[in-house]
Amino acid sequence: MLYEEIIKNVKLAGGMINNTAASESEIYNKEGFSNFVTDYDKKVQDFLVRKMKELLPDAAFLAEENEIQQSLGKGDCFIIDPIDGTTNFIFDYKNSCISLGLAKRGEMVFGVVYNPYTEELYTAEKGHGAYRNGNRIHCSTKGLEENIAAFGCARYNSDDTDLIFDFAKCLYLHSLGVRNGGSSAIDLCRVASGSNGIYVELLLQPWDYAAASLIINEAGGKITQIDGSKIFLDKPCSILAGGSICWEESLELWKSLI
Amino acid sequence: MLYEEIIKNVKLAGGMINNTAASESEIYNKEGFSNFVTDYDKKVQDFLVRKMKELLPDAAFLAEENEIQQSLGKGDCFIIDPIDGTTNFIFDYKNSCISLGLAKRGEMVFGVVYNPYTEELYTAEKGHGAYRNGNRIHCSTKGLEENIAAFGCARYNSDDTDLIFDFAKCLYLHSLGVRNGGSSAIDLCRVASGSNGIYVELLLQPWDYAAASLIINEAGGKITQIDGSKIFLDKPCSILAGGSICWEESLELWKSLI
Repeated sequence: MLYEEIIKNVKLAGGMINNTAASESEIYNKEGFSNFVTDYDKKVQDFLVRKMKELLPDAAFLAEENEIQQSLGKGDCFIIDPIDGTTNFIFDYKNSCISLGLAKRGEMVFGVVYNPYTEELYTAEKGHGAYRNGNRIHCSTKGLEENIAAFGCARYNSDDTDLIFDFAKCLYLHSLGVRNGGSSAIDLCRVASGSNGIYVELLLQPWDYAAASLIINEAGGKITQIDGSKIFLDKPCSILAGGSICWEESLELWKSLI
Repeated sequence: MLYEEIIKNVKLAGGMINNTAASESEIYNKEGFSNFVTDYDKKVQDFLVRKMKELLPDAAFLAEENEIQQSLGKGDCFIIDPIDGTTNFIFDYKNSCISLGLAKRGEMVFGVVYNPYTEELYTAEKGHGAYRNGNRIHCSTKGLEENIAAFGCARYNSDDTDLIFDFAKCLYLHSLGVRNGGSSAIDLCRVASGSNGIYVELLLQPWDYAAASLIINEAGGKITQIDGSKIFLDKPCSILAGGSICWEESLELWKSLI
């Protein structure tokens, strides 16, 4: 019932995005080059925070916009990206999503990612599998050479530019092809559904991957930092996520590269 | 009337793609690694060729599947990619399209690109502007630093791997971010609508870009080979397409790179 209510509100928030002409939105820079924030980011986040507070009044929040980045704490915590793929949104790319995860005592228990343009709704409840629009999904059980490899990179993290492009090229040469869609949450969910064999990005925020991390785990995949270590839910980290064979092969390729 | 009939049939063909579970399709390799062809590719092409022959019985055809690659000739010629983004299609990526262009005496006179997943229909008639779902579209009039840069690459063209990744990194460092969506026709149409400032790929077939080339020209953009020379409609070439400023800046970056 709680999860159904969460999903209902995430889909409503998706409608806010889908019905928006991006050109109407007021755009400005936040922390760095290319890290855009729009009015709609804030509108969608405000809507979701208000609705989630109605559902779980005592929950904490970790969310992209400032001033509500609380600690994960020992109770419930919503981890929210109101629009993942903001630059795509601004440029009318039709490849952005809402990402909302719920952690309890620091562990993910529920995650939902919704792409309003394709109406793809990815959900997972801990221990109960991963789903897209109600249909069970699974990570790829094949290797890189039979899969698409996806990577992400953002201009506010330019220190790692050489590394990520070298690794992307390396993955490309070991796979069927490379993609960069501009929404990490969508590309991570595509790992869960087997569309992407692997996804890599060298710096992401918890709200980018929290929900998708549970969806990937419940789809039988692996999501770790680039060196194979455990991801953080309370601070930024690198991400390497894939079906188990792709993940192992990519980890080896990474180690051979650095 | 002719163009309306063409559009109607392209949208019908789009329905054939959208209603397909890719996993049902029979998949095998064609010429090289990762250059997949599916049953649906052939089904969609057969449908379009049959319908176009009804509309213009004397027209020639240039199309992706074998045995109907005729010469552009001096009359009408349809240039068709039944599913652009075949690997995406196979992996249920929801980012593929149908591309259909009509040339007369070797010059593009009409182009249509349809993405059935987002229901985006791009059209252009020579001299009458470019449209998405009936609304006029224009290429970006700004420079790279205010735009997204997109690139494409395919495993059956591995000779240029270092070059394309070097150029992608270079474009990335001069723009807001980089994308690789896996469908060149969609990414070219995103140039026409201003979602992409620039698109580059080092080897494409005429059916990948013929329709989109007219759409970009009618949207006020430039589409050339990577060195700035005229594109071919009757044989493969490299593609550099963008709004005029992005195109000029990218051409300079390319020259500084090689």
